[in-house]
Amino acid sequence: MFPYKAYCFDLDGTIYRGKEAIDSAVKFIHLLQEEGIEPYYLTNNSSKTRERLQQVLQDIGVDAPLDHIYSSSLATAAYVAKISSNKKVNVVGELGIRTALIEQGLEITDEQSDVLVMGIDRQISYEKLVKACDYVQNGAQLIGTNGDIKFPNETGFTPGNGSFVQLVANVSGVTPTFVGKPSPVMLQIIAKEHHFEKSEMVMVGDNYDTDILCGINFGCDTIHVNTGVTPTEIVKKQANLPTYCVENLLALIK
Amino acid sequence: MFPYKAYCFDLDGTIYRGKEAIDSAVKFIHLLQEEGIEPYYLTNNSSKTRERLQQVLQDIGVDAPLDHIYSSSLATAAYVAKISSNKKVNVVGELGIRTALIEQGLEITDEQSDVLVMGIDRQISYEKLVKACDYVQNGAQLIGTNGDIKFPNETGFTPGNGSFVQLVANVSGVTPTFVGKPSPVMLQIIAKEHHFEKSEMVMVGDNYDTDILCGINFGCDTIHVNTGVTPTEIVKKQANLPTYCVENLLALIK
Repeated sequence: MFPYKAYCFDLDGTIYRGKEAIDSAVKFIHLLQEEGIEPYYLTNNSSKTRERLQQVLQDIGVDAPLDHIYSSSLATAAYVAKISSNKKVNVVGELGIRTALIEQGLEITDEQSDVLVMGIDRQISYEKLVKACDYVQNGAQLIGTNGDIKFPNETGFTPGNGSFVQLVANVSGVTPTFVGKPSPVMLQIIAKEHHFEKSEMVMVGDNYDTDILCGINFGCDTIHVNTGVTPTEIVKKQANLPTYCVENLLALIK
Repeated sequence: MFPYKAYCFDLDGTIYRGKEAIDSAVKFIHLLQEEGIEPYYLTNNSSKTRERLQQVLQDIGVDAPLDHIYSSSLATAAYVAKISSNKKVNVVGELGIRTALIEQGLEITDEQSDVLVMGIDRQISYEKLVKACDYVQNGAQLIGTNGDIKFPNETGFTPGNGSFVQLVANVSGVTPTFVGKPSPVMLQIIAKEHHFEKSEMVMVGDNYDTDILCGINFGCDTIHVNTGVTPTEIVKKQANLPTYCVENLLALIK
């Protein structure tokens, strides 16, 4: 019934919406766990720590081991640790990205460094943006945890991290690097840390531009669920189609 | 020696840089005034009131009558007064735009209105941007005092109003309207209020994309000075050339 070894789930729009569980997904995860398959969780959210994400999942009835939870913060911190020459970074962002960087042995500094990492910062200010532009114009490489321009809230869309990274990039005249989905970095890390072949993995998500393209860019199978950002009819017009399109995950259970 | 009746000057990069006068421009203005020609001043800056701009000019030795000073705030307020159905507006911006809107008989409100006006706001916050996106997604027309993505500071470039308007536009999925240069609105208002023909007017500025295109869009002669943002060699590569290119304004005095 379950042909893959590693089921990699997006969170928002796939397992929950805001604080509300998507029941079909939670049920599917419980069935996987009953078969001894412990899923993986990948989110572009950079504001929350691994522990906080674990709590959010627990609140909707999903028990997830810490080392099966991957955020764009963790992936970004791992990436920056590799490219930073002196292990010092300039940061715009909240607790999630700051904690992840420190846990990778990086020092967060206000002095000019060779990398500026930007994650969503709901305490953003004009001064912070001016400073960010200064860092980049003085040579810091601009790295965004994720490029999401917007995300859904109760009434419509609200600015995502990508909006602010793009602002700094436009003012500074540079092209940013994004680590979150649709970049395949998080799936690469899961494959490496947990020893999977691409053929054993599947990426499950609601957002074509981030989740599905992340799987396609990585080179594994993909499952699109019609429970979030991208409606199925839009997905079906894309040049590169997901492996499966389902209304919700229970459609996969026969 | 002075073939035009209305000399319309840009400010930053044309008459001064930061707090420093551009001597050639100030001398040229004094010569005009000695001939009984009182120039006009047009700025995309929306943060300062007319009185404050008058003070800034006085500080570098230029006496300017209040009704010869035009900012994107004043032009925006005049434009909004025409299109607003109930004379209520949502605003992101500083004293200049707020004062201009109130002086046009408009009421600034936090309740949903049919127009959102955005000028530079150096007290910008995530909450303000979320609110701005909400207004626009609920139907408010998005109007920017000006579309400048960046402006020069002491060390490089810093985010301009256009950066924030574009952010709100991208999140909300709309195309904004910009009133400041290169829109011809400010020159149209001068022509109307002071009874000039286009052939009697000239636009003088350092920035091809705002000042020179403003004059070209309006349909009057233009003078590019090589004292600010756009170097002459870049100007000379454009499809639509200014009427004159000079190093500085004293080159026009024989």
